[in-house]
Amino acid sequence: MKHDDATSLFGLVPGVDVGRVFADRRQLYDAGVHRQLQAGICGTKQHGAQSIVVSGGYEDDEDHGDVIIYTGQGGRDPGTGQQVKDQALTLGNAALVTSLTTGLPVRVVRSLNGHQRKSRPSGYRYDGLFRVEDYWSDSGRSGHLVWRYRLVQLARTESAVVPQPSAPATPAGRTTLTRVESKVQRIVRSTSVADFVKRVHDFTCQVCGLRLPTPTGAYAEAAHVRGLGKPHNGPDVPANVLCLCPNHHTLFDFGMLSIDDDLMVTDVTTGDPLGRLASNEAHEIGREYLAYHRTHHSRGWVHAAKPASGPDVSG
Amino acid sequence: MKHDDATSLFGLVPGVDVGRVFADRRQLYDAGVHRQLQAGICGTKQHGAQSIVVSGGYEDDEDHGDVIIYTGQGGRDPGTGQQVKDQALTLGNAALVTSLTTGLPVRVVRSLNGHQRKSRPSGYRYDGLFRVEDYWSDSGRSGHLVWRYRLVQLARTESAVVPQPSAPATPAGRTTLTRVESKVQRIVRSTSVADFVKRVHDFTCQVCGLRLPTPTGAYAEAAHVRGLGKPHNGPDVPANVLCLCPNHHTLFDFGMLSIDDDLMVTDVTTGDPLGRLASNEAHEIGREYLAYHRTHHSRGWVHAAKPASGPDVSG
Repeated sequence: MKHDDATSLFGLVPGVDVGRVFADRRQLYDAGVHRQLQAGICGTKQHGAQSIVVSGGYEDDEDHGDVIIYTGQGGRDPGTGQQVKDQALTLGNAALVTSLTTGLPVRVVRSLNGHQRKSRPSGYRYDGLFRVEDYWSDSGRSGHLVWRYRLVQLARTESAVVPQPSAPATPAGRTTLTRVESKVQRIVRSTSVADFVKRVHDFTCQVCGLRLPTPTGAYAEAAHVRGLGKPHNGPDVPANVLCLCPNHHTLFDFGMLSIDDDLMVTDVTTGDPLGRLASNEAHEIGREYLAYHRTHHSRGWVHAAKPASGPDVSG
Repeated sequence: MKHDDATSLFGLVPGVDVGRVFADRRQLYDAGVHRQLQAGICGTKQHGAQSIVVSGGYEDDEDHGDVIIYTGQGGRDPGTGQQVKDQALTLGNAALVTSLTTGLPVRVVRSLNGHQRKSRPSGYRYDGLFRVEDYWSDSGRSGHLVWRYRLVQLARTESAVVPQPSAPATPAGRTTLTRVESKVQRIVRSTSVADFVKRVHDFTCQVCGLRLPTPTGAYAEAAHVRGLGKPHNGPDVPANVLCLCPNHHTLFDFGMLSIDDDLMVTDVTTGDPLGRLASNEAHEIGREYLAYHRTHHSRGWVHAAKPASGPDVSG
């Protein structure tokens, strides 16, 4: 097991400038930008998605420039392109979830053929690196379950190069200066409202009661139940925020916890109840936000096959 | 308890441009940039540091532009400015640790008088917002214990504005579009070496054995024992990386866990042993990195007073 084999397929492609336009999928393939001739997602559940092709014509995608709401693959009629059944969280769809757990960047290619206007350039443009920030299930316009992902263009600081000190002299007597590429795996954001909720609960996790000590107090994270910003557009109000330890925040965001209207918390993997969310009279929790989270974050994947033990390969 | 009272003192000061030069401390005070006439750190243990003054002449500070290694306050002889005793993790020093737990930004003011050359401009320049990314203890040049902090200039993405949907109509019938300022509380970075270590341990925490499930596998974080980059300059090699759950990663980074050469883990708050670090023959842990972590991250604050229950005020 060598530690750079799998990850060498991720990130920028040496010698290929961001912004380059390719005439067709074969050229994209040969350049190493998107190593799938048909599928829109290239990658594996084990290591994550290396690249995707965003085709402007797909009804469920939303392209906001530096933020893309991308819809997973599968369940479509090959003839009409219409969604005819639910999408499963397998193959490329699973790969994009793994990208969220690893933080590895995803190359984005935009199809320039979406609008079918003769005056627009045709082909495919390689638009650089994005990170998967969120995923959830939704009812597509067809009514069938689809998987959706928010991809955000990488900022300079999100894939930083950390200078390393000189390595020890090699046997040949040369010293080398190596640089370490670090990627952002997880960003925890907060707001003034989030600070308020954490203080109401004295930085104690509402799921497990843990309070992580620090030398000057305690550390907790605020989880927005219905996410801020596109496409969830949840409000930044105390009723939409929970005070959680980092572990339960991570599980909640991955949809592994479901919270019902009685504030009972369930582990969706096992179905086990984990007890009732700690409450505080100064902090009422909005049931509509819990319902949104159940529908979009902890529903879909329970439908899907249980996580398999081995890797699968996106085709 | 109103949720914006305390936090309104943090961040940019309305009407004061970044880069503005002030003649003296009184002007800085009156403008609301640094509301302390003497102390270099303004803030409280309860809410964090609002601002600091970096004086170029102080022997233990290092100013790299967008990264500042800042040394805490206290323990100096008022007459000579020499360090004559250990610094305590109280007052402004504690406030800077709280800034790490909350993610609230710190205004940085640079003294322009450091080099005492007549040809340089004098006064104080307000240089905008930084975040506290790390803190540790060190032996200053005097030999006494000092607290040190890495402050990193905020990038655009680290204090993002999330657009909110229109709020419901007010009683007067107006609708408003609000924008929510979100700040980065915690960034988890990873590298190819980190991915390798996480896979060796199958994403299982080496401290507690927890493996956080996700729909496509599991989630774990890699903790560099001796940090990458300035000033720790730890190497990005497997021997310097642990596979931890987010909770134990947070505790480890705050110095709340100490790991001895037999890989026994101790909770430094209580002194309780937490068991031996899980080991794997494919992943040897470097004892020199554990020693570095013990010396710089989990030693100093045990010296200091136990965390007090009430707030204190930096003077």
